[in-house]
Order: sequence, then structure tokens, then C-alpha cells
Amino acid sequence: MRIEVNKSLTAVNDKTAEKIRTELQEKNIFCVNIVSAPGSGKTTLIEKTISQLGKNLRIAVIEGDPHTDLDSGRVQAMGAVAVQINTQGGCHLDAAMIRKALDSMDTSPIDLLFIENVGNLLCPTFWDLGEHLRVVVASLPEGSDKPLKYPEIYSLSHTLIINKIDLEPLLKTTRKDIIDNAHLINSSLQVFPVSCETGEGIKEWCDWLLRQCKGMPG
Amino acid sequence: MRIEVNKSLTAVNDKTAEKIRTELQEKNIFCVNIVSAPGSGKTTLIEKTISQLGKNLRIAVIEGDPHTDLDSGRVQAMGAVAVQINTQGGCHLDAAMIRKALDSMDTSPIDLLFIENVGNLLCPTFWDLGEHLRVVVASLPEGSDKPLKYPEIYSLSHTLIINKIDLEPLLKTTRKDIIDNAHLINSSLQVFPVSCETGEGIKEWCDWLLRQCKGMPG
Repeated sequence: MRIEVNKSLTAVNDKTAEKIRTELQEKNIFCVNIVSAPGSGKTTLIEKTISQLGKNLRIAVIEGDPHTDLDSGRVQAMGAVAVQINTQGGCHLDAAMIRKALDSMDTSPIDLLFIENVGNLLCPTFWDLGEHLRVVVASLPEGSDKPLKYPEIYSLSHTLIINKIDLEPLLKTTRKDIIDNAHLINSSLQVFPVSCETGEGIKEWCDWLLRQCKGMPG
Repeated sequence: MRIEVNKSLTAVNDKTAEKIRTELQEKNIFCVNIVSAPGSGKTTLIEKTISQLGKNLRIAVIEGDPHTDLDSGRVQAMGAVAVQINTQGGCHLDAAMIRKALDSMDTSPIDLLFIENVGNLLCPTFWDLGEHLRVVVASLPEGSDKPLKYPEIYSLSHTLIINKIDLEPLLKTTRKDIIDNAHLINSSLQVFPVSCETGEGIKEWCDWLLRQCKGMPG
């Protein structure tokens, strides 16, 4: 019975998400759903991406957080439009929340929309938000076993960003360990190792993302 | 209606948890529920604690994981009894799972029982497992804002372990930032900064834990 309830919930969500995806596509807005464990650096990645691509693209961010508006404040300070969704302890965003956020924004000038999901490697997995691209961020200090422990979210993502690679010399975990395990789960994952601290890898990620936004092959 | 369902679910859980707590107390087993985000180092902390206290206490571990048995293999290699619970993607343990795990173990020789919860800062919050002590582990590279973003789990924990302090010289986040934010949420949190890599702080944590196990004031 619990499974039926969940199925019916995600079925309604899937329809709302599909409508959002179509609407955004018609408006030439490319939408990226970013998922990860807490503290992997999603917000910093968005800040660095705004910094790199803000001249080429008009960027907006929908920020998901259990309670605070710390992250929307950070991306607004970078010059991006930001809408905060507080889930009041809820463990993922859903398409109805995104619908409401979009209805509160002037979407006409936007080229690229980031959705920063709640920090969680389980709950966001099956909740389509109408995105065109799902990016999972792994932080190098989290260790290399996360793709094996959380295979669903790695299976349903298109892109893996490995953040905090500047710490690699101090850690037992290597980026290769993470990539090998991630590709065991999802061999088609496009991988970008980056350091939001030193800037390493940010240009490669942003150049690739810009091509995705413009509908060009990766 | 959703809230009612959840309330009734946790009410049943609370009763089971209370029975477990009483039963463990009668058997002189001290039970510690460890919660954190994925990759904070819960398993490594348990390994280091077994290494430090294994001569004084007979230690068992109930390992919660969405899918793998990687962690129970690790603590078994340290000489501890370990029982694996796979939640099949479920985002937290509950008292019924602990009941089942306990029924599968010979608990008579155990002094200290660790429960390693699923890596998640939201879902485990309101699920009492019958523990005597709840420990939240924060990893320094996760940043200092997690207590503010996930206040419920910090409110309902007794002890905060700040792991990976060996990386502090390389990070913008300091242990003080985390402690200050954690104490804003829960001023009675007992804090232990540790590095499972260098061993710093492990003795202080283990000495304190040993006193808790023996019912002595911290």
C-alpha cells in the first residue's frame, strides 16, 4: 500500500515535471538539477559557474533548503536571480515546488536555470523536476564508495562533478576511485573533476555546459 | 493527513524504541546511534573507537546502508560483531529494523552497541532507535552551515564529533565555526574534534565514551 501511494505521488509529479520541461524548452531555458550529499559544494559550484558564464548567459537559481536562505543570498550576491524554497525539513524538492517558484519569477530573460536540490543522496532520486540535465556532485573527502551505496541517484544522473580535488594529495581517496565506481553504476556519466577553491576544472565544466545550453553536442 | 500518518508511524516506532532501550539497559549494553551526512567518516570513527576501546569493552555494530555491506565488512575486520541492515534505498533506520537485528545476534557478551545510521541529515531525525546516546558527526570539509540547515538533527543529538580536522589548515571552514553554529542550535551538545586519519582527539572521545558506558558523569 505504501508503494502504491508513492507510485501515485511520483506519477502526478512526473506529469508536472514533463510540462515544466516542455515549457522551459519552448522558452529556450536550459534547466540543470544539482543533487549531492550535504556539504559537497553545490552552491559554490553554482557561484563559480555564474562567475564564468554570467557574461554569456542570463542565469537564475532555484535554491532548495530545509530551512535557511543562506544559499540564495550567496547566489544573489553573484548577480543571479534566486528564488528560495524551504522544504521545512522535507528531504527533496518536487515538481510542484518548482512550478510555484517558476510562477513567482520573470522567466523571460533566463537562458540557464539551476535548481539546487536539498543535500541528500536518497530522497531526491525519483523526483523529476523538469530538468534537462541532472548533475550529481561528489566531494573527494566523502570517499569513493558513495556511487556503490547510492546507486540510484548515480544511475539517474547525466553528469558527475568531483569537487574539492585540491585536497587530493592529503586524502586516501583519489578521483580515479570515484570515477571507477561511478562508471560501474552508470557508464555514460560525463565526469568533470573540479576544485571550486583553486578554480581547476571549472572552465572545462562551464565550456561543456555552455554547449549543452546551446543544444550542441557535448 | 500526511502528518497524521507520520505521527502514527513514529508513535509505533517510539514504543518499540523504548522497549529496546529498557532491554539494553537491563543487559548493561550502552547503545550509540551515529548519524551524519554521507561520507563524514562514521565507519572510520567506529573502527578507531573499536581499536581504542576493544580491550576494555566488547563492541558490536549494527550497520545501516541503502544497499552495500561494505561497512559491516570493515568493522568485522576490526574484530567486532557486525549485523548489516540494507534499507533498499530507504533513507533511515527504524526501531523495528533494530529489533530484528538484535534478535539475530547473541547480545549477552556485548557492552557497547553502535548503530551506524544511513548517511542522511534529515530522514533519521525523528526515528528513535532505542539508543542511549545520539552522536552527530560533522566533517570539516562539509562547511560550517550544516547545523543551521539541519537544526532538527543537531537539536536531537547529545554529542557532536567534528571529523577530518587534519584538513583544517587547507579549508576556509574552522572547527570553531561549526561549534558556534551547533551551539546556537543546541547549547548542551558535547563536542569532540577528531581526525580519524591522524588519531588526534580519538583518545578524548573514547575516554569520555567509556565513562558514559559505565554510567559515570561525562
